[in-house]
Amino acid sequence: MSFPGPLPLRSGASLGDYMLAYETYGTLNADRSNAVLVCHALNASHHLAGVYAGQPKSEGWWDNMIGPGKPLDTDRFFVIGVNNLGSCFGSTGPMHTDPATGRVYGADFPVVTVEDWVDAQAGLLDALGIRTLAAVMGGSLGGMQALSWTLQYPDRVRNAVVVASAPNLTAENIAFNEVARRAIVTDPDFHGGHFYEHGVIPKRGLRIARMIGHITYLSDDVMNAKFGRELRSAVEGELAGTTYRYSTQEVEFQIESYLRYQGDKFSEYFDANTYLLITRALDYFDPAREHGGDLTRAFARASAKFLLVSFTTDWRFSPQRSRELVKALLDNRRSVSYAEIDAPHGHDAFLLDDVRYMGVVRSYFERVAAELAGAAA
Amino acid sequence: MSFPGPLPLRSGASLGDYMLAYETYGTLNADRSNAVLVCHALNASHHLAGVYAGQPKSEGWWDNMIGPGKPLDTDRFFVIGVNNLGSCFGSTGPMHTDPATGRVYGADFPVVTVEDWVDAQAGLLDALGIRTLAAVMGGSLGGMQALSWTLQYPDRVRNAVVVASAPNLTAENIAFNEVARRAIVTDPDFHGGHFYEHGVIPKRGLRIARMIGHITYLSDDVMNAKFGRELRSAVEGELAGTTYRYSTQEVEFQIESYLRYQGDKFSEYFDANTYLLITRALDYFDPAREHGGDLTRAFARASAKFLLVSFTTDWRFSPQRSRELVKALLDNRRSVSYAEIDAPHGHDAFLLDDVRYMGVVRSYFERVAAELAGAAA
Repeated sequence: MSFPGPLPLRSGASLGDYMLAYETYGTLNADRSNAVLVCHALNASHHLAGVYAGQPKSEGWWDNMIGPGKPLDTDRFFVIGVNNLGSCFGSTGPMHTDPATGRVYGADFPVVTVEDWVDAQAGLLDALGIRTLAAVMGGSLGGMQALSWTLQYPDRVRNAVVVASAPNLTAENIAFNEVARRAIVTDPDFHGGHFYEHGVIPKRGLRIARMIGHITYLSDDVMNAKFGRELRSAVEGELAGTTYRYSTQEVEFQIESYLRYQGDKFSEYFDANTYLLITRALDYFDPAREHGGDLTRAFARASAKFLLVSFTTDWRFSPQRSRELVKALLDNRRSVSYAEIDAPHGHDAFLLDDVRYMGVVRSYFERVAAELAGAAA
Repeated sequence: MSFPGPLPLRSGASLGDYMLAYETYGTLNADRSNAVLVCHALNASHHLAGVYAGQPKSEGWWDNMIGPGKPLDTDRFFVIGVNNLGSCFGSTGPMHTDPATGRVYGADFPVVTVEDWVDAQAGLLDALGIRTLAAVMGGSLGGMQALSWTLQYPDRVRNAVVVASAPNLTAENIAFNEVARRAIVTDPDFHGGHFYEHGVIPKRGLRIARMIGHITYLSDDVMNAKFGRELRSAVEGELAGTTYRYSTQEVEFQIESYLRYQGDKFSEYFDANTYLLITRALDYFDPAREHGGDLTRAFARASAKFLLVSFTTDWRFSPQRSRELVKALLDNRRSVSYAEIDAPHGHDAFLLDDVRYMGVVRSYFERVAAELAGAAA
């Protein structure tokens, strides 16, 4: 959907005409009260669930969570996925042409924040004729957007489901983002962010960025369980090795093979400028900042009910960070449900099947549906 | 000191004529029984303690630990530091000329292991006329060398002091090493490891490698305490910022400035091929491997007494890894002292002053000195 703009941004810049790619699932009810907005994290998109016709491998990124009869049940809710501004899956981003200059944005795409994305999402809801969300939901960076919704548009969101998220990044989180960004920016093929016109892609940098990302998404435990110190041939199909090759550059351990594969794959489809923008949006998110770091004061304006979920082995956005949010909400006497799921999978757990996790989300949305039905009755 | 070689290596290759750079501190006693070998980790050298004449900033890397009256007291012990093969601080390494070809080794320097280093160190002791070590000591990768001494030369080492170390790397440890190596190897200035002849240095890759390293050396807690989310100008001396600049490439947070500085500094002095070699030696170390993964069986041949030290916030080589070693040693009824120091500094703690840590090491060496005196009496 096109929007005329200008969209004012937190940086002081603004974005002219822009597009938002979105998908919807299920049916909006008569009083337009059953909409659930699902916000995506770093490398996902508006394609939340299901597959595209004739493309069996095109499953949405949260297909285990969203669909008919699933925890977020599209038989009951009208679910909306939207690709964020600056991303590379359909909404206006760095690879598009700046209408003001006629040139591809590249590194000149304005810096966007979580708050800017939420503003753009609100504009999409306006265009869809939806005043109030039954819920806004997201994991990781998507959870930050859900949190921000409750602060920016408190009267437009009844429930917020915030999974594996945090009130801001720690120094270590920022550090990992920064290393990834430096890997991209210092790749000679980055060309100051204007690589499109050179016909190249900073794949080296993207590979490194993705490898770092993957390490932080997994727990030490699950890495040991999945890969351990197993040796592996770099040659597809060859049997796992049993002796060291004594090489510094060849693949020696399975974990290396896995990371290289993930890095290569990512560098084929993800935009380098988008990586910079989205990690920066993560860095900047900090709703307590304008309240002198006081998270309780920051959440004084929230009026939604909350479900927060964290995972014990998530060292990227640890349970401790979710508990900070729970405390700030309880300080404000908000309604909060909190589940700390004992799962081995690290940050990745928010995308994976886990009976207790899925059960908690399902129960929460059943209550939301019941409240909607009660309100309608 | 030069050695004629060939030194047979675990890879099956061998190293021809080679040099070992070393330093000694204190005085070897008459019966040559008070020697302590100190092994270094990734980016350190044989220069353990003190300063070079006229170079006030040339303090050794373990100067707080080693010297007259210090925990490892050079008034009592004859302390030896040796730069490992493949390193870049004086011993034969990738930047030297291969006597067999007349060309700089570069990426053709043979892969060396912890066991190979220990063999070379034993050769140095032979040349110095030292049969038995009062102790071998090291932190991190240096601790692995100390462990390996007790397995390769059990009758030549009376005590092993193993700080912040591990019986092998986890998948996550290997993963971080691999990302760092890929950053170096894919830097166009690496030239397949033969960058010397091109007159360039793969600084981009070295910077990324060092930034990743630094994150893993520190704890999340100490990073938050030192840097938190403080903003900072990239310009030296300018006051810390108070507002976001909204930039993806400029320094925004203090932690970014710190990491960039560390990366830049490292890329000026450290050799890229050495980085590959030393991280690979870390990956390969796994004394339980030839015993089907059974660490207890691996340590059956050790006869030294042990002091192991770990630090609570070290997530690189966590206390759990030291406890595995303690268990294997106790299973073999070895004498083991173990101290788990509650310190906030992560893996870096092994290089820092901590009253309890220094006290534990001091006490241990006092006992070693007393035993030497008793044996001599």
